Amino acid sequence: MIKRNKKQISELRQDLVSGEWVVVSRARALRPHPKFKKRKRFNQSKKTCPFENPQKSGNKKPVLIYYWPNSKKWILQVIPNKYPAFGKGYCSYEHKEGPYTWLDGVGFHEVIILKDHNKHLATFSEVEINFLFKAYQERYLKLKNRACVEYIFIFHNYGIEAGASLSHPHSQLIAIPIIPPDVSLSIKGAKEYWLKNKKCVHCEMIKWEKKVKKRVIFENEEFIVFLPFASKVNFEVRIYPKKHNNCFESITDKERKSLAQVTKIVFEKIYKNLNDPAYNFFIHTAPVESDFFKFYHWHIEILPKTSIYAGVELGTGIEILSVSPEDAAKLLRQ
Amino acid sequence: MIKRNKKQISELRQDLVSGEWVVVSRARALRPHPKFKKRKRFNQSKKTCPFENPQKSGNKKPVLIYYWPNSKKWILQVIPNKYPAFGKGYCSYEHKEGPYTWLDGVGFHEVIILKDHNKHLATFSEVEINFLFKAYQERYLKLKNRACVEYIFIFHNYGIEAGASLSHPHSQLIAIPIIPPDVSLSIKGAKEYWLKNKKCVHCEMIKWEKKVKKRVIFENEEFIVFLPFASKVNFEVRIYPKKHNNCFESITDKERKSLAQVTKIVFEKIYKNLNDPAYNFFIHTAPVESDFFKFYHWHIEILPKTSIYAGVELGTGIEILSVSPEDAAKLLRQ
Repeated sequence: MIKRNKKQISELRQDLVSGEWVVVSRARALRPHPKFKKRKRFNQSKKTCPFENPQKSGNKKPVLIYYWPNSKKWILQVIPNKYPAFGKGYCSYEHKEGPYTWLDGVGFHEVIILKDHNKHLATFSEVEINFLFKAYQERYLKLKNRACVEYIFIFHNYGIEAGASLSHPHSQLIAIPIIPPDVSLSIKGAKEYWLKNKKCVHCEMIKWEKKVKKRVIFENEEFIVFLPFASKVNFEVRIYPKKHNNCFESITDKERKSLAQVTKIVFEKIYKNLNDPAYNFFIHTAPVESDFFKFYHWHIEILPKTSIYAGVELGTGIEILSVSPEDAAKLLRQ
Repeated sequence: MIKRNKKQISELRQDLVSGEWVVVSRARALRPHPKFKKRKRFNQSKKTCPFENPQKSGNKKPVLIYYWPNSKKWILQVIPNKYPAFGKGYCSYEHKEGPYTWLDGVGFHEVIILKDHNKHLATFSEVEINFLFKAYQERYLKLKNRACVEYIFIFHNYGIEAGASLSHPHSQLIAIPIIPPDVSLSIKGAKEYWLKNKKCVHCEMIKWEKKVKKRVIFENEEFIVFLPFASKVNFEVRIYPKKHNNCFESITDKERKSLAQVTKIVFEKIYKNLNDPAYNFFIHTAPVESDFFKFYHWHIEILPKTSIYAGVELGTGIEILSVSPEDAAKLLRQ
């Protein structure tokens, strides 16, 4: 299928959706897998953790809270971020400074806190992960019709190296007045593919990945997990619903349960095979006016932090991978 | 000039060239400047440093070397990278794997080594920095006409946090068969502005920055240094030639001397005011077929590493700044 020159130092792979490029360094990919050092994760003390009892630490009342059945013990709560990046303002007005344009940072910034201080995505139960996605979904549906909200972005930082300032497990949600540039680029690519081929570009990728199998690490009835052909970082993993669906917030209870299952399994594999790396994960879904973006296909992107973006990545937008997605999949499948 | 609502938590600023967005968190910007901790830079031992005598450490012969006058002591040498990301191959052939496209990673990858193990951009002399730019220029001119080379990207990583694997001062050059996505985006923006306004977008920015002064930190006859209105990281600094010129490689001896002067001053200011941070810097210049890109304006971007790209940056492409470029300029001007 692929003829490759063995002497070739590297290959440039193009992202089928965004059109961006990554370099897969084949010379390095052929070497034995890097050994991932056992690391000691920095765990803040439970005693001083502001998320143990968020309201006692000066946070506002939860906008959403789930309790264990017949219990006063909470499982998860959503609160407004104490240090928000977005807040009140006017969204209809474009400001000018000389040649430049700026907008009020209008929107919402919430924190989704899971109760158990010492757990993480690999050790939470499927039930807890299901509640996490349920909270994402509920807050999404609540905020999508608010004035000025064009896009809702849900993300999770784990570990200091991935930018998490608190070790207590928490996700974040921002509701913002623009469609972010990276999402715009993917939407544009998906739209062009749709117009040209009358097919969803992500469905095409899923079909191909199911056929060749070399980058797939897991699937169940509803979801498939694979490493993208043109990964943005070493060991990038994506979770896709198999059925075409442009918006995350529309998933059914059954689908959400299934998503909780694959999510737990994927994070267990990452934890075990990469020795508890830091990571970021986020949901890419259609903008809130989702009916205009039927061609899109929502998914989750997981970016383990095993290297640093340096001059090349920051100045060109081209990432250099030292492990090919195929080799990375082999390792993660274990 | 700018009316801002004091209660506004943040503002979204648009990059005039690329159209991308950053968030300037005003609430945080109004707080006292973060104190930058004195840090101990990791310095590898001179004894085991492979760049002390590159050829003894198994590197190839230099493709360029400069000596001190009447001396056998070298100032700088350029060698092929021992672990290149690009090398020999065929550039005219697009490979296919199912729906995906890939290219051979054809090109060149060189390392520009300055002799003095213990110096860095703030402590090298203007003479040495001039030689550094001279080497960039010579190698650029040498490689720009080689088959398959579409773009030449020159960069420098300083400090482990910025991805430098060796502490010995060195820059890198890659000559590659595509125009990188980030450069493409800037070129597109500059072209659209040129077509619409019959003016160079960067010249317009320089004119505005000279007028309002609040983001300028230094200028001499040929160059101006300021922080961009929509910086990609806290404390991003750019060096622009004042005279419109699309290609770095065409600078005169006089301009290069002037560039060495401003470069040294800027890195001294960064070193002193941010307490020796890690950083990446790189040159953004027109693609090698520069005649097609007369509307472009070459410049240097310096990105101090004072924070980590987390979920928001990686998933949306929107950077969140905790220090406004104006406050950052005030600090750096000192």
